[in-house]
Order: sequence, then C-alpha cells, then structure tokens
Amino acid sequence: MAAATMIEYDEASPAVRAVFDDIKASRNVLDVNNFWKYLARDPALLQRTWESVKQVMAPGALDPLTKEMIYLAVSVTNGCAYCIASHTAAARKAGMTEEMFGEVMAVTGMANETNRLANGYRVPIDPMFD
Amino acid sequence: MAAATMIEYDEASPAVRAVFDDIKASRNVLDVNNFWKYLARDPALLQRTWESVKQVMAPGALDPLTKEMIYLAVSVTNGCAYCIASHTAAARKAGMTEEMFGEVMAVTGMANETNRLANGYRVPIDPMFD
Amino acid sequence: MAAATMIEYDEASPAVRAVFDDIKASRNVLDVNNFWKYLARDPALLQRTWESVKQVMAPGALDPLTKEMIYLAVSVTNGCAYCIASHTAAARKAGMTEEMFGEVMAVTGMANETNRLANGYRVPIDPMFD
Amino acid sequence: MAAATMIEYDEASPAVRAVFDDIKASRNVLDVNNFWKYLARDPALLQRTWESVKQVMAPGALDPLTKEMIYLAVSVTNGCAYCIASHTAAARKAGMTEEMFGEVMAVTGMANETNRLANGYRVPIDPMFD
Amino acid sequence: MAAATMIEYDEASPAVRAVFDDIKASRNVLDVNNFWKYLARDPALLQRTWESVKQVMAPGALDPLTKEMIYLAVSVTNGCAYCIASHTAAARKAGMTEEMFGEVMAVTGMANETNRLANGYRVPIDPMFD
Amino acid sequence: MAAATMIEYDEASPAVRAVFDDIKASRNVLDVNNFWKYLARDPALLQRTWESVKQVMAPGALDPLTKEMIYLAVSVTNGCAYCIASHTAAARKAGMTEEMFGEVMAVTGMANETNRLANGYRVPIDPMFD
Repeated sequence: MAAATMIEYDEASPAVRAVFDDIKASRNVLDVNNFWKYLARDPALLQRTWESVKQVMAPGALDPLTKEMIYLAVSVTNGCAYCIASHTAAARKAGMTEEMFGEVMAVTGMANETNRLANGYRVPIDPMFD
Repeated sequence: MAAATMIEYDEASPAVRAVFDDIKASRNVLDVNNFWKYLARDPALLQRTWESVKQVMAPGALDPLTKEMIYLAVSVTNGCAYCIASHTAAARKAGMTEEMFGEVMAVTGMANETNRLANGYRVPIDPMFD
Repeated sequence: MAAATMIEYDEASPAVRAVFDDIKASRNVLDVNNFWKYLARDPALLQRTWESVKQVMAPGALDPLTKEMIYLAVSVTNGCAYCIASHTAAARKAGMTEEMFGEVMAVTGMANETNRLANGYRVPIDPMFD
Repeated sequence: MAAATMIEYDEASPAVRAVFDDIKASRNVLDVNNFWKYLARDPALLQRTWESVKQVMAPGALDPLTKEMIYLAVSVTNGCAYCIASHTAAARKAGMTEEMFGEVMAVTGMANETNRLANGYRVPIDPMFD
Repeated sequence: MAAATMIEYDEASPAVRAVFDDIKASRNVLDVNNFWKYLARDPALLQRTWESVKQVMAPGALDPLTKEMIYLAVSVTNGCAYCIASHTAAARKAGMTEEMFGEVMAVTGMANETNRLANGYRVPIDPMFD
Repeated sequence: MAAATMIEYDEASPAVRAVFDDIKASRNVLDVNNFWKYLARDPALLQRTWESVKQVMAPGALDPLTKEMIYLAVSVTNGCAYCIASHTAAARKAGMTEEMFGEVMAVTGMANETNRLANGYRVPIDPMFD
C-alpha cells in the first residue's frame, strides 16, 4: 500500500478538476505538477494551498522572479529535494539566469553559515536593531 | 566565565583593526555590529567571513536589496534571532519597504509550509524537472 | 566500502538477536525493519534505542496512534525520507485513516508556516503565556 | 526603528478589526494574541493566515487537542520560542494534562534522535514501505 | 500557570533524588543543571535521558572532549540557546581551549554552508561514496 | 534542461582547472568529487569555497579527523545526503573506525533529542553558563 498516490485529472472529482483547471489557466500549462496531484487526495487542502500560493506569488511590491528566488533559497535551506527541483524550474521560467542562480546559492550558503556563527558566539542583538 | 566576549576597536590587534576599518569604510558606518566584535576573537575567521560576505553581497546579477531579502528569508527559516534583527535592518537600509517585508515573510512562510507538504506526501520529482 | 551495511538475523551476535527477538515479539512481525538492521552494527546503540522507543511509544496518557502521528509530524518537519515512510506505515497500522493523514499533514504544514511568521515578525511572548 | 510593531484594536482598520472580531468570537477570548497584532501590519496576510488556521484546526477526523499537540511537537522541533509558549497554552486549554505534555515531549525528542540515526546510517527504505 | 516549573532536590520524590544524586556524583558537582530540574517533572523521562546521556558521553573510542565538541556543533546547528550555553561550558570544562572553540565554530559554519550548496546544486553522490 | 550540470576538467576554464589542480594536489587524489564539478559552474564560488574549506579543515588546535567527525555530525543533523556520504568517506580516510562512527552517531542523535527537550520544557539558562 503506497503512502501516497497521485490523482490524475480523468479520475478527479469536480472540485479537484476546478482547482486543476485554475492552475493550468493561471500558469498557462497543459498539466499540473505532481505536487498538486498528490495534494488532490485532500480536496480542501488542495484548494486552500493553491489559493494561498496564487495570492502570495502574484506580482506585488516584489516581482515574481524575486519571489521564486526567495522560495528557492528557503527550499535549499530546508533540503526539500522536490521543492528545489520545481522552484529552480519555476525561477528559470520567470527569468533567473545562470548568474542569478549562482548568486542565490552563494547568498543562501553564506546566510546558513553566519546564522550558525551568530548562534555559536552567542552574539547579543545590537541595541539599534531592536 | 562568559562563553563569548566582545572585542572593541581599542583593544583589537592590528589585523582585527584592519578588518574593522574595511567594514566601516565599505558600509559607511561609524562602528561595526556586535557580530564582527565577537568573531574578532578568531582573527582568521573574522577576515575570511568578512571577505566572503563582502564578495557575496556585492552588486552582481542580483542587486543588494534582493540579496538582503534572501538573507533574511534564510535567517527566518533557521530561526536565528540575531540574524533576523540585523538583516531586517540591512534590508530596510537597502530599500525594503513595509510592503516588501510583508511579501518576503509571506513567501518564506508559504515555502516552509509547502516544503513539508511535499515531504509528507512523498511527491516524486516530475520528469521535466530532472 | 559502503558507509553502512545491514546485519541480518543469521549473522547477528546473541546480544543483537535478543533485541531482534524482542522487537519481533513486541510488534508481532516476522522480521525487523532495515532501521534496526543498520543500528545492529553498534549493539549498545541498538539496545538503548529499542528500549527507549519501546518505553516512549507504549500506551500511556496518549494512545499509540496519537504518538505515531506526532512522530510522523516531526519526521516530515525534518525531511527524513526513511522516517516518513516507516512512520506513515506505522501510523496506518495503528489506525490512521486517509482523512487523519490529511489532517496531520495540514497541521504540520501550517505550524511550519506560522513558526516562521512568528520568527520574522519577531513577536514577543504574551505575558499570559510565560 | 523597530523591525515590527504591534497593531491594537483601537488603531486597526475595519478589515483588521473584522478579523480580530472573528478570532475573539471563535475562541471566546477578550483580546487576540500578539501574533495576530503583528500580522495585522499586512491585512491580507492576517486574513489568509487566520482563515487557514481556523480551517485546519477545526474538529475533523482529529480532535482539537490532538491537533494542538502536533502543532506543539512541530514548534518544539523548529525551536520557535513564541510558538512553543502559545501552543503549550492552547494545548493545555484544549485538555492536555501534565502527563500528556510529558509524552508529547518524549515522542518529539525520540523522533528527532532517530531521524538523525536513520540519516547517519543511511538506511534504505524497506520495500514494504514504498 | 507556567508552562514548565523546576523541581528542586528538597521537593523531589525519592526516584528523582536518586537520579539527581547520580548526576552529582558522576559529574562531581554540588547541584544539577536546570535541564534536569525541568525533566524531573517526568521521572521516567528524567531517568531514561540521564542513563542514555551517561552511557553516550562516557569515554569510549572518542574522548569526552571530542564528544562535547560534537554535541556543541549539533546544538549550534539547531540554534538551541540553552544547549549552546550548557555544552560550551561542558566542553570548556573537558579541556576545550579558545582556539579549539574557534575551530569548532568554523567547521560548523562551513558545514552548514556547503550542505546547502550541495542541496541547491543537486549534486549526485559519487559512485565511490555509495 | 537539467537544473545543474557538471563541469569536467577537460572542458573547464583555466581558472577552474587551477582550483581542481590544487584540490587534487592537496588531497592527493586523481579527480575531484562531484561537489566541486558542480560548483565549477560559478568559478568565483568554486574558488572561495575551496579556499575556505582548505583553511578551515587544515590541522590546527583540532586534528583533521576531529574536524571531519564534526562536519559529519552537522551534515547528519541537516539531513544532507550528499554531505553525509562524502564526509563519512572523508572521516574514514582520516582514521574514523567503526567504533568512532557509532559514537559520532550516538552523540549526534542524543544532542538532537535533548535540544528538543530543552526547547519544549523551556529551560532557562543557568546563571553560571551566562
């Protein structure tokens, strides 16, 4: 018994199909990613997650490319292999060049290093930052 | 006996002073943050870390504001209180508005959530992402 | 040279066999999971870990199903692929339905998101919680 | 300049007040926690987060106490001090006894330990778990 | 109501006192750390944790100083403030010099950085490491 | 389009070859690991990372074996599969025996457990540790 199985469009309920249709229309793609096909096992979770992602990733004070690079940096920090693969692809689609990718990785690596140096040296917060 | 003590400019060795001077000149500030005063206990670590940070955070394919927001998103993900305080300040200095801050937080929160959904549902990587 | 190799019952020492026998009897299974076969390389670690797991996961103020779902939520948060697979199976065996699984995932995802919002907004603890 | 400031009911916009009113009514409390007063700086984030939390934490296949204990276990794993304080309080309000608290901690600690043993010994997933 | 209260020797049950006595004798100290006074709320957890720590931290193939430095590196990686403070003290008591402390921090920081570079660049494991 | 591709010596620029040559000479190996072949996509990152690793991992107050075991403990804590594989190999090459490996794992597991117990019980730092 698999811990998780995927729901394809053809076998999906009308509620799930409605979300899939909105994802495909919003992103102008022919099919949704595996992530959404797995979440479809729980239609309420699927819908809530998609509505939140759509709202959070829409252009705002930050452009979609910047948002995707932040998403990637978090996914790399957490070591989520699926998320690193899918958000690297999404960031590239949004315009991330090879040079930008390298700089996202360099900043992410450096932040993870200095986060631990600040922890280990038990650095108190400067009064001007409080 | 404190686990860590801070080294001020007046008591610093010439090697440490040289790094402090470069930080102050590069950032146009009157004094360095506590972070550097603690790292100064290990002059080789201080110099290597500063040289790396200076190189990584310099303008490149990404502008300094974008880099600071990525730094902040990683620090928030790791829960490093010192780093969150100092890099929120640095990002604001580089131009992060209240709206941008809100969007960095929203993306960081969402990425941390969907990273776990992808883990828990054990979603296999889509062939097109590999 | 493999970093880790598995020890099967037939090649195990009497001390390791005694632990394997107790696992099989306690769980009413024909063979132990790979996890125990790897830990068997260090018999003291094997025995201590099994005794602790047996004590911690026994019915108490919380029933075994609730404990398995908490174990799963932690494993998903940490991104441990082996642990997610094995504790999803264990939770299902203890009675976790598909609906319960979906709710464990939803709570785990939400907690990971709001943990970061609390970090990033630097929310001070309410006096009544202290 | 504080990195984050709190918005009280008296100074809140109608949109924020509507969310605060719903939180107070749903939880039968006189005031909202600091968490919501900080998120109120971004009304869209406030509303989306509250709607999601309300939906996720509602009674379902799992009762509210079980959900709060899972929330607590994740917060402890991530080391979020604010979240540990607030969700310990919420779990106690939902019925968590001292004995239950001790068992949540014991399971959370054990899971964090065995997650790393599985990582370090590089244990391959048993075929029956896939 | 505090989420956690401390149990002092004078108010402890005989079972808790027996563990406290063993900690004091084993470590040659006049009183136990706060950590043990909090765990004392759950005598079974207290005893199991102390027995495990005593066994794991005893001299073996690795000396106590090396073990304490590894403990510190993990605590710094996880950002556990209490654990960083207490294990820095324990490592110093076991012989960690200022130079050794600096090197533990440098290695810990570097490992946290390169862990993320390996994640982000999605580096496949070299065949010779498998 | 792969998210990351590897650069072999034959196709590398002179700057990348110089780093590869230094790695091979320093470590007395015939070829560099995949990690370096991926970082080679960003020559500045490659050079900075190698210079830092070389400096940090050189014999100092701590010997190379101790440093490699700390590196391994951090990688296990973070769940970085590539890093666990490569640093287990590096530690063995530096002299880590099977017994030492078992003790590194035991300490790493225990630290991850007690880090969470300290978080969950909200243990305040003992005055003597501050």
